[in-house]
Amino acid sequence: MTAHSIAVIAGDGIGKEVVPAAIECLERIAELHSLDLEFTYFDWGSDYYLRHGRMMPVDGLEQLARHDAIFLGAVGSPEVPDTESLWGLLIPIRREFQQYINLRPVKTLDGVRSPLASKEPIDILIVRENNEGEYSEVGGRAYRGQPHETAVQETIFTRQGVSRAAHFAAALASSRRGLLTSATKSNGIIHTMPFWDEVVEVTVRLYPDVTLVSELVDALAAHLVLKPWTLDVIVASNLLGDILSDLGSSVTGSIGLAPSANLNPDGDFPSLFEPVHGSAPDIAGKGLANPVGQIWSGAMMLQHLGHPEAAEHLQLAFESALREGLGTRDVGGPSSTAEFTAAVLAAI
Amino acid sequence: MTAHSIAVIAGDGIGKEVVPAAIECLERIAELHSLDLEFTYFDWGSDYYLRHGRMMPVDGLEQLARHDAIFLGAVGSPEVPDTESLWGLLIPIRREFQQYINLRPVKTLDGVRSPLASKEPIDILIVRENNEGEYSEVGGRAYRGQPHETAVQETIFTRQGVSRAAHFAAALASSRRGLLTSATKSNGIIHTMPFWDEVVEVTVRLYPDVTLVSELVDALAAHLVLKPWTLDVIVASNLLGDILSDLGSSVTGSIGLAPSANLNPDGDFPSLFEPVHGSAPDIAGKGLANPVGQIWSGAMMLQHLGHPEAAEHLQLAFESALREGLGTRDVGGPSSTAEFTAAVLAAI
Ligand SMILES: CC(C)[C@H](C(=O)O)[C@@H](O)C(=O)O
Ligand SMILES: CC(C)[C@H](C(=O)O)[C@@H](O)C(=O)O
Repeated sequence: MTAHSIAVIAGDGIGKEVVPAAIECLERIAELHSLDLEFTYFDWGSDYYLRHGRMMPVDGLEQLARHDAIFLGAVGSPEVPDTESLWGLLIPIRREFQQYINLRPVKTLDGVRSPLASKEPIDILIVRENNEGEYSEVGGRAYRGQPHETAVQETIFTRQGVSRAAHFAAALASSRRGLLTSATKSNGIIHTMPFWDEVVEVTVRLYPDVTLVSELVDALAAHLVLKPWTLDVIVASNLLGDILSDLGSSVTGSIGLAPSANLNPDGDFPSLFEPVHGSAPDIAGKGLANPVGQIWSGAMMLQHLGHPEAAEHLQLAFESALREGLGTRDVGGPSSTAEFTAAVLAAI
Repeated sequence: MTAHSIAVIAGDGIGKEVVPAAIECLERIAELHSLDLEFTYFDWGSDYYLRHGRMMPVDGLEQLARHDAIFLGAVGSPEVPDTESLWGLLIPIRREFQQYINLRPVKTLDGVRSPLASKEPIDILIVRENNEGEYSEVGGRAYRGQPHETAVQETIFTRQGVSRAAHFAAALASSRRGLLTSATKSNGIIHTMPFWDEVVEVTVRLYPDVTLVSELVDALAAHLVLKPWTLDVIVASNLLGDILSDLGSSVTGSIGLAPSANLNPDGDFPSLFEPVHGSAPDIAGKGLANPVGQIWSGAMMLQHLGHPEAAEHLQLAFESALREGLGTRDVGGPSSTAEFTAAVLAAI
């Protein structure tokens, strides 16, 4: 029995409620599957920032690097500017640990109402490049406050960066229905997009069982609303993937329930698992938070740590609690955070 | 009776079917409202390209500049690379004529089925900045074909560019429900987005009856799916507006029906009116094309030329033909292009 050491950062707001809920579920699963999960808790986040002027200690990344995975709740507080809370914790982790894949499942769940009239089931994996592209650190402003002020942002794509994302997405597609849709915008002026297309195409050619379709991002956004059930795996750049993944989970009705995995597929560094939702300070501390995104992220973590059966077990458990109508109020159910968690534990 | 001289470019594919259909409607409306519309036809586009190696003559822009408006069908053909067809015609017109606003209505129409379960009516105007931002001409590639190849695209926002788009959007919101939503992504690293926010905010402050809400583009994409009826006017950068407007019209079910106006609000140059859809070579020449996007664009042109009653008249006519179930097959109706056009003429 290999031990897995997991760094837990509950963070801010509802993170402090949904993380303990998910850990309870993970512990129960670990027991039943004889997994040795060791959780180490870090009190980093906005409260820490208000005391120490930073989101995590100077050696925070070094401390995290010693773990096999990072389990994050949410960061963000009305008292700390977003740029501080993100740049002081989440973004450095994504970058320093070369978590170049942000994997976001988009899936209809029984018991969760979709805004679409069609009830066709949806099952998409969005592979978002997570380290480069439109989110580069290069940019700034000239002539601040003057009428001719100009602000620039450099979008930077590298062959290595695009090709490793495409490899990951193609391998994933090949393990599923074999359809890979690449989000592009190469019909216009954006110089980086024909490059994206080229590198994706060359890479995916190495996977003969994968069919690649390049789709303009505007058309793909419409596609996600009109016929999402025809999509399998989507690969997209950092910004486009960010937009498409929120869009995708809104289409399944599960925008507040979506999980994500920030992966370092090469295994040189720990990967990070977090729900897509934020810290929701308005409902924090009231027992209203929906822990599905956090529990689902936990299932993705088990999968990543090499325990697909345990992951599946946890997945089926929270899906069945939802199907039985035991969800929290945001999905029209009757439960508090604790009650829903109890239902998942019972289903396990 | 002022004469308006209108340059007409039917362009490629179904452009050659929907433009004549829309012109018929415009001529009937002009008669009834005593407007003097003079149409001048230009055979530019992909056929012209195949004969002359360019999409329009060298002095094409000068010729167009003499007109009061440009009425465009669609450009794009399987025989001409997109970059040629767009950069040889549409994009230079947008830029040289300082058409810095791309206005795109998103509206539910009776007789057009929306993919959403909710039947709440939707009425949004998307104001897309149309000249700068993510679509700058600055960018390129280094180390072509090498493992360390890098491609860059410079996103460039100017105070003048953002503020004129924000002015336009705020004035529009003030003539409607007074709610302006600005698409942003300033919580991350993108250096240009806090600048966008600042300039929009300072500008909109001059319109005390307008409420400004800045919304992260990922959340706004979800908002467009979950509660589009709560939105009024949206202002967005070039790329974000491109994505949001296709998304918006997909939500109303009218992705193939949407119109657009590329406006030079200062009146120094002609504005251009075109449907959002492309040249659809697969259905061209078969009488299947839906002319609504083109007719609707014609109504926007009448509005822009200072004839709001005539515009309203045309708008009500095509809306009533759709409501009566006389639409083309793509919207579930029985009509050919000609039959639908006849229905609109009858409704006029
Ligand atoms: C063809 C393309 C360059 C164009 C754009 O993105 O502007 C189109 O999608 C549009 O929306 O008019
Ligand atoms: C908070 C923000 C920078 C972040 C992103 O865009 O990456 C968030 O939207 C996400 O999707 O994780």
